[in-house]
Amino acid sequence: MNVALIGYGKVAKALARLLAAERARFPFRIVAVQTRRGTAIDPAGVGEAPDFGPPLPDLGEFYRRAGADAVVELTPLNPVDGEPAIHHIRTAFAHGLHAITANKGPVAHAYAGLRREALAAGVQFRFEAAVMAGVPVFHMVRTGLPGCAILGFSAVLDSTTTVVLEAMEAGLSLEEAVAKARTLGIVESDASFDLDGWDAAAKSAALANVLMDANVTPQKVDAKGIRRLTPEKLADLKSKGKTVRLVSRAHRGKDGVKLRVRAEVLDRDDALANVRGTGNLLLLETERLGTLGLMASSLGPAETAYGLFSDLVDVSRYLPPKQ
Amino acid sequence: MNVALIGYGKVAKALARLLAAERARFPFRIVAVQTRRGTAIDPAGVGEAPDFGPPLPDLGEFYRRAGADAVVELTPLNPVDGEPAIHHIRTAFAHGLHAITANKGPVAHAYAGLRREALAAGVQFRFEAAVMAGVPVFHMVRTGLPGCAILGFSAVLDSTTTVVLEAMEAGLSLEEAVAKARTLGIVESDASFDLDGWDAAAKSAALANVLMDANVTPQKVDAKGIRRLTPEKLADLKSKGKTVRLVSRAHRGKDGVKLRVRAEVLDRDDALANVRGTGNLLLLETERLGTLGLMASSLGPAETAYGLFSDLVDVSRYLPPKQ
Repeated sequence: MNVALIGYGKVAKALARLLAAERARFPFRIVAVQTRRGTAIDPAGVGEAPDFGPPLPDLGEFYRRAGADAVVELTPLNPVDGEPAIHHIRTAFAHGLHAITANKGPVAHAYAGLRREALAAGVQFRFEAAVMAGVPVFHMVRTGLPGCAILGFSAVLDSTTTVVLEAMEAGLSLEEAVAKARTLGIVESDASFDLDGWDAAAKSAALANVLMDANVTPQKVDAKGIRRLTPEKLADLKSKGKTVRLVSRAHRGKDGVKLRVRAEVLDRDDALANVRGTGNLLLLETERLGTLGLMASSLGPAETAYGLFSDLVDVSRYLPPKQ
Repeated sequence: MNVALIGYGKVAKALARLLAAERARFPFRIVAVQTRRGTAIDPAGVGEAPDFGPPLPDLGEFYRRAGADAVVELTPLNPVDGEPAIHHIRTAFAHGLHAITANKGPVAHAYAGLRREALAAGVQFRFEAAVMAGVPVFHMVRTGLPGCAILGFSAVLDSTTTVVLEAMEAGLSLEEAVAKARTLGIVESDASFDLDGWDAAAKSAALANVLMDANVTPQKVDAKGIRRLTPEKLADLKSKGKTVRLVSRAHRGKDGVKLRVRAEVLDRDDALANVRGTGNLLLLETERLGTLGLMASSLGPAETAYGLFSDLVDVSRYLPPKQ
């Protein structure tokens, strides 16, 4: 299977390494890369250090020349409207290409429409890495829980705020804690996205749209971040056996799915309180299995790349057989 | 799809109710039931209160007369050798029937052989409900984690011992605690299977055989149960912020997969310590996603029946198209 990438940052490089390591079992090849600064196309594979020429100005032309079966969209999150990722994906569908993204924007802002367009174009749309990196959340609900509706969820999904809260609990100021998280390489370029709850809101909207047919946008999420907290307040809570996490909650109300993101005070023995560092926890309220949890201890670019890889494996099943 | 059942206890009845409730979306019908006491066969469906005649003495004859596409095997666990469930499943394969079981015995004792036989017979073998009821553990690893080996696991899988330990921590004697667990309907007919760690050993062997190609039997598991614990010891540990759970652990050593079941003393903030009542937690050590956890808050006969149902949905995809 031939793959085109849009974007070539940390996750794309991790994906290139993973594909090289798995080539024997999974014969996938990156044949084209498009970034704002340049375009690389090589039917024999662009390699791990692509030879970028000047950028093709037109995305359609890139897709036509790429010779790819699937596009992996890896531009950074724009939390306001999910662009330009949505445009990149729509254009891929229009060119008969399967599309995979690690960007939560498209699913948070435009899932229902993109699903319809993919269906109409006869291609697949996958986004496992958009929430909880490679943990197969979307795959599990889509294929492993037949006839079992998702009624709601609670979750800790934003690693940056967890790392910041832990550092503040240990006595650092908010600014010092953010600086520390930055050294771990887990902060979005603008830390406000995390601190104000926008990242968690986008992930919550993505989950609700896909798992609960919620048809919401991140703007519909009632989100507050962690800025009002102080090291003193966290130390006081700790002395009372409590801690704080940025928690996403969804439930189906009379007027549709309600979504909320809050810095919640939790008892130490609450499963959500036990999320540490770059770990994530998602507790699904299900129709037939009660509360069903998925957790990961540590998620970063390599785990996100694995999510893209697992989507590529899935999509490769839909390719026409080789002549 | 037409389904035959072997056994008609609590889980079978829950499955019959679930199939009746889901008939519109999933047109599955129970057309035959075989128990030690009687046989019921009705091509129009046996209903929720099957009309049992005398038992057919020969299983092959039952399968030939049943008119089923798939068999659901539901006899109780025999932890020593997995029989007669293994025989029931082999005979199903020999009659060209897909086989599904909630019994951990066959997978714990004879997984590699049964997998080969199913493949040779061109039928499917499924056992999602054998560990963690309907939580899609086996499905997730088989279909959602391509190219990601399972390196080991730790888990709390036996509800009875958790309920007994919680009751003893609250001051009850072992005998009183077992009596309490029995009123909840979660104790195997012989409580020793649970208390001595046999149930956990069988589940551990089942997981290791399927997820790690371990080729072990429950007898190879180094298992000790919870009998040496007293209410006094548990109260003392509680005062030190600790608790006890029956923990299964697997890792790949030089000479194959090593499995251990122990009543472990855990810190209160350990995820395994936070398993309560009939909850289960499985922490998989994975090649590409670090520690990946699956948890369920409360598992019983209805959740086990759902596991069988999800297997039936999966198997139904392999039926030849209707003429």
